[in-house]
Amino acid sequence: MISFESDYDNGCHELILKRLLETNDERATGYGLDGYCEAAKVKIREACGKPEADVFFLVGGTQTNATVIDAMLQGYQGVLSVETGHINVHESGAIEFGGHKVLNLPSHDGKMAPNDLAKWLKDFYDDPTYDHMVFPGMVYITFATEMGTIYSHAELKAISGICKDYKLPLFIDGARLGYGLMAKGCDVTLPQLADLCDVFYIGGTKCGAYCGEAVVFPKGNAPAHFFTIVKQHGALMAKGRLLGIQFDTLMKDGLYFKLAGHAVQQAMRLRDAFVVKGYEMYSDSPTNQQFVLLDKATIDRLAKDFVFEQWFPVGDKINCRFVTSWATRSQDVDALIAAL
Amino acid sequence: MISFESDYDNGCHELILKRLLETNDERATGYGLDGYCEAAKVKIREACGKPEADVFFLVGGTQTNATVIDAMLQGYQGVLSVETGHINVHESGAIEFGGHKVLNLPSHDGKMAPNDLAKWLKDFYDDPTYDHMVFPGMVYITFATEMGTIYSHAELKAISGICKDYKLPLFIDGARLGYGLMAKGCDVTLPQLADLCDVFYIGGTKCGAYCGEAVVFPKGNAPAHFFTIVKQHGALMAKGRLLGIQFDTLMKDGLYFKLAGHAVQQAMRLRDAFVVKGYEMYSDSPTNQQFVLLDKATIDRLAKDFVFEQWFPVGDKINCRFVTSWATRSQDVDALIAAL
Amino acid sequence: MISFESDYDNGCHELILKRLLETNDERATGYGLDGYCEAAKVKIREACGKPEADVFFLVGGTQTNATVIDAMLQGYQGVLSVETGHINVHESGAIEFGGHKVLNLPSHDGKMAPNDLAKWLKDFYDDPTYDHMVFPGMVYITFATEMGTIYSHAELKAISGICKDYKLPLFIDGARLGYGLMAKGCDVTLPQLADLCDVFYIGGTKCGAYCGEAVVFPKGNAPAHFFTIVKQHGALMAKGRLLGIQFDTLMKDGLYFKLAGHAVQQAMRLRDAFVVKGYEMYSDSPTNQQFVLLDKATIDRLAKDFVFEQWFPVGDKINCRFVTSWATRSQDVDALIAAL
Amino acid sequence: MISFESDYDNGCHELILKRLLETNDERATGYGLDGYCEAAKVKIREACGKPEADVFFLVGGTQTNATVIDAMLQGYQGVLSVETGHINVHESGAIEFGGHKVLNLPSHDGKMAPNDLAKWLKDFYDDPTYDHMVFPGMVYITFATEMGTIYSHAELKAISGICKDYKLPLFIDGARLGYGLMAKGCDVTLPQLADLCDVFYIGGTKCGAYCGEAVVFPKGNAPAHFFTIVKQHGALMAKGRLLGIQFDTLMKDGLYFKLAGHAVQQAMRLRDAFVVKGYEMYSDSPTNQQFVLLDKATIDRLAKDFVFEQWFPVGDKINCRFVTSWATRSQDVDALIAAL
Repeated sequence: MISFESDYDNGCHELILKRLLETNDERATGYGLDGYCEAAKVKIREACGKPEADVFFLVGGTQTNATVIDAMLQGYQGVLSVETGHINVHESGAIEFGGHKVLNLPSHDGKMAPNDLAKWLKDFYDDPTYDHMVFPGMVYITFATEMGTIYSHAELKAISGICKDYKLPLFIDGARLGYGLMAKGCDVTLPQLADLCDVFYIGGTKCGAYCGEAVVFPKGNAPAHFFTIVKQHGALMAKGRLLGIQFDTLMKDGLYFKLAGHAVQQAMRLRDAFVVKGYEMYSDSPTNQQFVLLDKATIDRLAKDFVFEQWFPVGDKINCRFVTSWATRSQDVDALIAAL
Repeated sequence: MISFESDYDNGCHELILKRLLETNDERATGYGLDGYCEAAKVKIREACGKPEADVFFLVGGTQTNATVIDAMLQGYQGVLSVETGHINVHESGAIEFGGHKVLNLPSHDGKMAPNDLAKWLKDFYDDPTYDHMVFPGMVYITFATEMGTIYSHAELKAISGICKDYKLPLFIDGARLGYGLMAKGCDVTLPQLADLCDVFYIGGTKCGAYCGEAVVFPKGNAPAHFFTIVKQHGALMAKGRLLGIQFDTLMKDGLYFKLAGHAVQQAMRLRDAFVVKGYEMYSDSPTNQQFVLLDKATIDRLAKDFVFEQWFPVGDKINCRFVTSWATRSQDVDALIAAL
Repeated sequence: MISFESDYDNGCHELILKRLLETNDERATGYGLDGYCEAAKVKIREACGKPEADVFFLVGGTQTNATVIDAMLQGYQGVLSVETGHINVHESGAIEFGGHKVLNLPSHDGKMAPNDLAKWLKDFYDDPTYDHMVFPGMVYITFATEMGTIYSHAELKAISGICKDYKLPLFIDGARLGYGLMAKGCDVTLPQLADLCDVFYIGGTKCGAYCGEAVVFPKGNAPAHFFTIVKQHGALMAKGRLLGIQFDTLMKDGLYFKLAGHAVQQAMRLRDAFVVKGYEMYSDSPTNQQFVLLDKATIDRLAKDFVFEQWFPVGDKINCRFVTSWATRSQDVDALIAAL
Repeated sequence: MISFESDYDNGCHELILKRLLETNDERATGYGLDGYCEAAKVKIREACGKPEADVFFLVGGTQTNATVIDAMLQGYQGVLSVETGHINVHESGAIEFGGHKVLNLPSHDGKMAPNDLAKWLKDFYDDPTYDHMVFPGMVYITFATEMGTIYSHAELKAISGICKDYKLPLFIDGARLGYGLMAKGCDVTLPQLADLCDVFYIGGTKCGAYCGEAVVFPKGNAPAHFFTIVKQHGALMAKGRLLGIQFDTLMKDGLYFKLAGHAVQQAMRLRDAFVVKGYEMYSDSPTNQQFVLLDKATIDRLAKDFVFEQWFPVGDKINCRFVTSWATRSQDVDALIAAL
């Protein structure tokens, strides 16, 4: 069986394992205060063009979202997200566990429309009863989105501008940041993205690492005592070097971006094949996740040799997801293309 | 100025003040363990036809919703409500403060459609990723709704049946229960309503009392240590007799229902006048809240002598709310009708 | 039976009922935005000598403590209280429900010792692992305390000074504020108390009102959107005038302090009688709560005619509590004294 | 510098890295549903003598404590722990973040005395106001404790018996379980421990793994939907195999216990040397953590070549902690002994 099921079913990049082996006998201070974490932070600040950035390493995405959002919201505030946002659907209520409402905007193939955001905020403050409601305290978007789409620089700038107008921090969930930045046609650079938001993270788990998300507060604007907040959320890794070593490796010589680029390239090959062979794409994704509408017969046929997820019915077909990753082999994509 | 602004801007029914005066010099045990509360509970159980019901007195609606919902949900569960439900809009995130997500269904003039509920639940359990999501743990509806509408007996029965199928408790927010039960065309009795749900409350604040909501667990099914849960939520009144005396008075000789009936009668007079004079109603409300589309000129004219709320624009008009209550005087309705 | 069981088992002062009657037919805006609340706020600001104070009316003590503390703490902070503090013992975990730890100091007859506080804070910041711990975010004391004791002006000043050194807000729970300020030997005035803390409340429930606690932020320093925070905690009364009318009445012509003074006077008569007759007092309380050690036989004898609480054993006796209130009749104290 | 600073400053056992290398190119389902996790669970069930046990793998200790405790408590319940318990001191309020109070018992060198527990529970239910308090919902102990001590089988049985009497689940924090079970003089076996409690965990982070704690519900008694609860707490690792592979390696051929045994052996050598050379031990620890009172001069001298923690002053000396681990080299202990 060849799997296109997810981008977190492989181990990690071999260079990471190599460094774990090399460093295994050393002793290092715990809780992310070691030299490997420090070295990784330096590389991340450089890649972002933000020498003053605060950087923290957490283990996984849901944990990172819950910790960052809770740290940056006041108790009476909620977080604005499109309905399909990961925090609104697939985190088992981790945001609400922290006491905060997820305030919903419509999703446009996973993206938030600047106009929707502006209208929501205007309507909120126009409503004479707004102080009986949950205040907006933050805007959350994903890059790339759960549907594989990305924001253009202009769109990001528009959202960022609205956030500034309303003094709302903008949080970019970068669980798939690499795949987003390396997407076909992406006109946003990492430094630009860092400029336009108040906090984001570089997702390691889905792009080369075994685990780890690097949270970046680009303007040195981490909330006071964020270390303690991370600990309170159960998100502080004792042997933090495990995260530091991974990110130090991934951020060296642009490895992270090379891995993401490879995945996107394979996804584009797949996408082109789908289109050429007349399949209908569900969304126009330039990243490592491809959504295509397949009928039952085709699904049954492909499922004999390939693993992929069936998301939900669209008319008499099923929206199916095929995911490539840094670890996807070219020949596996060849095989799938041949089978279409 | 004559006010149709809300049903909680008057004091309380005069009989309540009379009883407060008569009993003022007595001493009574605190926390709702006094004889007045006990007497009120007996009357409530009788009115519901549920001799085994557990009854508790809380102060206000948001508090009651937050306490009951938190008490009946597991930590990983959320509560299903239509988007316009009070808990989803006008409680400043009190439900999320307790750690729970409000799961949204579409609103049909404030009501939940049994089909929507059934479909939502089927879709949830059909989704292979449901254990990464917030589990449904309860269904919340309002009776009468925020839009003045009510459920028919058949509709309530359908919702109740679906809840039973999925083992979900059904919670009826009765902040305006009296106005609902006394609505024109209502075919639900209080005992029927008590039969069909797992917990509901009889709203005092909006119907004759100064404050107070009587929470009823009809099958004696209050969660263990609900008294302590009420205390933990800051909802336990020290001099609980203030609530007991009010409900004992309201439940005596059907006063509560007479008061509600008066309000509905006045609202129907108003409604009929609106319709006769060619105004377009926003919703088909048989209760004490009437929603009508008015143009700017009419609003300006009426606002000189009458107080009412403007909710939101509909086309080039505004959806305006006129509310009657137990305290609305017939001559005030006459005056408004004359001014239309 | 004559009761010395608690100071919240009577109704309310007759002038309050009179005003409720007089104003019952008026309509007033909800949620504390009415004229009665405004008038009461003016009187409270004047009594405190703080024209810029923010004032809010909540319903009960536990609710007020939970709301104020949660509003003023960051998520990673806890509140410092002596072990016997109400928030640590008798609020069913309402503070923890809001996500905050109660950090314990030893109790000295219900009071916090300035030295203990200074030492705790020094030790905390001296501990190299403090960022793995709960940060102190606020100091909570009660005045009068649960044991009937009060702080001297010098003690309050010392605690206040330490709080300033560590930038910790000082919160004074005034559920029994009147009884404290009118205590025998009290050298603290209301304006002085308002000067020395960041937030306190004037307890109505236990001193003349049916319900209600007036929260005062003396320097106009209410947290942003405190109204919404109150709503979120289920503590916003719809017919807020019920609280406004009560406080407007109590704060007029010093009624609140006269009522408290009466209770203290009766308590002192009782105390003197205990001492004269050779009973051992548990604590040296100058307020309306008297704690005395009684043996089993005496308890049984007195319990035939008088109601009082047995708190806990001390040696072979029981620490018993006798409480007077604004409503305690002189002849009832006479009767108890005669029975001693 | 030779470090005795902590038991979490090394990498992981070399066999784990070997297996990570061997399996790196395989694809595995996420979220702990892979074959490695399954294999590890089988071995754990066997080691515990509990074929029906539910086993889950989480990442770190604080996270595990917060998740398990929140999952097993009702909202109005707290958890009983000695004052020095990790959850009460060094978890930044993670338990309170979940809404629960930590109820304190005195610490006896880190241990809970069965008599203290029995008395606390009796006193609680004897207090007539207990329903205004936080209910006990669980008992939490650590094995080995933060002070290096362990419970005897008789002590564990006594605590377990009291828990059963009051229907309270017993939770054993096993962050240092290996070092406890392999302690000198330990008369508790893993199956016995599993018998006596309702949930415990096998700490990987401090004993051979890079990260990971294996939570065991010995009677198949995991709370309903514990998977989702783990997710909600941000504690579900996407590439769960990282945990599965580690535990599968550690539990094979008793490696976990061999590693722990080695650490204890080295600690005992160190302890014997301390005693022989006349140093005063702070506690009587038979595990990998040794506490000894050192004067300033000795500390300064040793600190030139050795890393260790200074915990707190005792008289004119400092209580210093020396920790061995699975990775401690015999020659490093030799060097320290020589330097004493």
